[in-house]
Amino acid sequence: MSLKEPDPMSSLLIRNVRPMGSPGGPAVDVRVQDGRIAEVGPALAAPAATPVEEGGGALLLPGLVEGHTHLDKTMWGMDWYRNEVGTNLTDKIDNERAFRHASGHDAAAQSKVLAKAFLALGTTRLRTHVDVDTQAGLRHLEGTLRTREALREVQQIQLVAFPQSGLLGRSGTAELLDESLAMGADVLGGLDPCAIDGDPVKSLDVLFGIAHKHQRPLDIHLHEPGAMGAFSLDLILQRTKALGMQGKVAISHGFCLGDVGEREREALLARMAKLGVVLVTSAPPSRSVPPLLACRQAGVTVLGGNDGIRDTWSPYGNPDMLERAMIIGLRYNLRRDDELEVALDTVTHSGARGCGFEQYGLVPGNRADLVLVDAQTVAQAVVARPVRRLVVSGGRVVARQGVLQPEVAAL
Amino acid sequence: MSLKEPDPMSSLLIRNVRPMGSPGGPAVDVRVQDGRIAEVGPALAAPAATPVEEGGGALLLPGLVEGHTHLDKTMWGMDWYRNEVGTNLTDKIDNERAFRHASGHDAAAQSKVLAKAFLALGTTRLRTHVDVDTQAGLRHLEGTLRTREALREVQQIQLVAFPQSGLLGRSGTAELLDESLAMGADVLGGLDPCAIDGDPVKSLDVLFGIAHKHQRPLDIHLHEPGAMGAFSLDLILQRTKALGMQGKVAISHGFCLGDVGEREREALLARMAKLGVVLVTSAPPSRSVPPLLACRQAGVTVLGGNDGIRDTWSPYGNPDMLERAMIIGLRYNLRRDDELEVALDTVTHSGARGCGFEQYGLVPGNRADLVLVDAQTVAQAVVARPVRRLVVSGGRVVARQGVLQPEVAAL
Repeated sequence: MSLKEPDPMSSLLIRNVRPMGSPGGPAVDVRVQDGRIAEVGPALAAPAATPVEEGGGALLLPGLVEGHTHLDKTMWGMDWYRNEVGTNLTDKIDNERAFRHASGHDAAAQSKVLAKAFLALGTTRLRTHVDVDTQAGLRHLEGTLRTREALREVQQIQLVAFPQSGLLGRSGTAELLDESLAMGADVLGGLDPCAIDGDPVKSLDVLFGIAHKHQRPLDIHLHEPGAMGAFSLDLILQRTKALGMQGKVAISHGFCLGDVGEREREALLARMAKLGVVLVTSAPPSRSVPPLLACRQAGVTVLGGNDGIRDTWSPYGNPDMLERAMIIGLRYNLRRDDELEVALDTVTHSGARGCGFEQYGLVPGNRADLVLVDAQTVAQAVVARPVRRLVVSGGRVVARQGVLQPEVAAL
Repeated sequence: MSLKEPDPMSSLLIRNVRPMGSPGGPAVDVRVQDGRIAEVGPALAAPAATPVEEGGGALLLPGLVEGHTHLDKTMWGMDWYRNEVGTNLTDKIDNERAFRHASGHDAAAQSKVLAKAFLALGTTRLRTHVDVDTQAGLRHLEGTLRTREALREVQQIQLVAFPQSGLLGRSGTAELLDESLAMGADVLGGLDPCAIDGDPVKSLDVLFGIAHKHQRPLDIHLHEPGAMGAFSLDLILQRTKALGMQGKVAISHGFCLGDVGEREREALLARMAKLGVVLVTSAPPSRSVPPLLACRQAGVTVLGGNDGIRDTWSPYGNPDMLERAMIIGLRYNLRRDDELEVALDTVTHSGARGCGFEQYGLVPGNRADLVLVDAQTVAQAVVARPVRRLVVSGGRVVARQGVLQPEVAAL
């Protein structure tokens, strides 16, 4: 390779910021080179022609991580959807499929709108579950694949092929999931093997079979409460071990871990920790949830996510992962500053680790995904959710004051 | 009285707004005269020299109501307070008293900062609990009385004289509460007669005695869980009836109503409804709470409030009552549009009724307390919490785009 002139666009110096609040420490500078963090320290030298951003003493966070959402379902930015849906899980599933069939919901356009809204608020990596069923076929996957491709340079998107209408109930779903992984879905999704599929052993055998064939990770939505959920979880852990899928399985929701007694819970958590099975929570305020601090103490990684955002299921949710961290904090009554740092961790480091996003964090060598906010401490950033003063993704300034740069908005 | 020229400052015409979203209906105009709503209807005539505000088809809400906060405790706008407090209720009480003693916390200044932040976000009426104890004496009451006076024209503030450190434990507290009501506190507060005071009969007899003497309403913070809380609640209802205080008693929190069995709960709710005892909730996501819809069905008014906002107790809370409505919605899993209208009701009509604020609501004759937001529906206003485009209090424009008018900021 011949020597090249340094490209000023590939370097950046951010002056005067406080990584994670730098409790008691001085402000530092961050030098970015070729999309990575090159150097972090006080008063760094700026190579000639390096663009400089003045951080103004702001709090520096790593890019935020959304661990569980549904970009393809959202009606973000659309006319208000009047929710008159019934209360059962199957009401919501059937209502959505019917709505989609009637409206021709555009998963490509909507997933891009919401992914960009996430990016403007500092989320540089996210995992999204994409509906695959015998009615919509692979249309949602094709749409979100387009979004992933369009935003590839500025956002890392993991696609989970997700059988929202169940795996066994509609013949042909397993084949569609198999095809989804061949087409580029990163992860295979699962759903309530007892409550929805009605045959947990068969359901999980089919599911693990597809994942194992493609050597892809699993992310299983386990809403089942109490003893039923614990039973399913046991079957999942058995198969994780038998198929050597340690470190490749995520349990989303896992409400049952908030229901069962402490002894049963501790035994399940110990097995999860040993098998590297992680837990994803939206920390819903109206349901029992896995106890966050007990899970962490047992060695289980817990990551945070919105679940659906403004869709036919629910009007709630927001592409602001600091708000999700706040809701996690409220749900678990995390009031002390050190506890609020745990809430943030679920949407930063644990989020990245749980999803398998690499080169993550505020140290040299990692991808330069950076968020600046005006806050004195991490705890304040979580409860106040300040405007994102600057968002950098892969070394590139993508948003200022919560608004995407025009060239990013145009992607 | 002689005839006077009309004062243009006392009239206002707001064009093109949708009261509560006007589902299916046309936009209307609202004419304000002498601080009251004079007329609501399509294409109203504007009397000469009447200032006109263009509403742009925005959603019109009545002024928001905060039913339970602690303006005097807040550190809103101050340097971040690092929370390292223990988990017991008494840890938090003792920590706060010690912090206050050491820091000389300025209740007058802080209560005004937070009250104005509430106003900028559309809260035109609020009830705040003011600490009265033998260490701080009446200092917090004096401070909040000053704030109430300073903001009298633009915000209705009810002050509750509240024995945060207990009524019986520190000799002299009852006398301070008595003095507080004589000084101008509107309501008498109470606190956990079993768990904090340790002598529920004596505690409630003293408390009701002071309220009855001054003929003032009561607002009792009942954190006590399960059977203990239900026992205290029974004692409260007995005294409400015996002293003829129907319609004058509020129970804040009332967590016990989320714990006890359905039959016991229904019996308590029926008595509350009959005695006009209302329930105030912050809908904490980490605790059991009174079931909102069951309470309403039983005829009990339920109103919403933040509880403390960014103080030594908790870093959470926000002077945005739409955000509180959202948290209430999340806590009670209110997803349908008609359910989200209930969430809003807790911080509007039920809030006003529960606190006894009069002349409330969007019909002619009522105080012109108006909030405009860009939202298609009430449900959207709750989940999206849009910028307050215009806030009118007592007929006067007090804030635009979430920012107080300079003359109001200067109060």
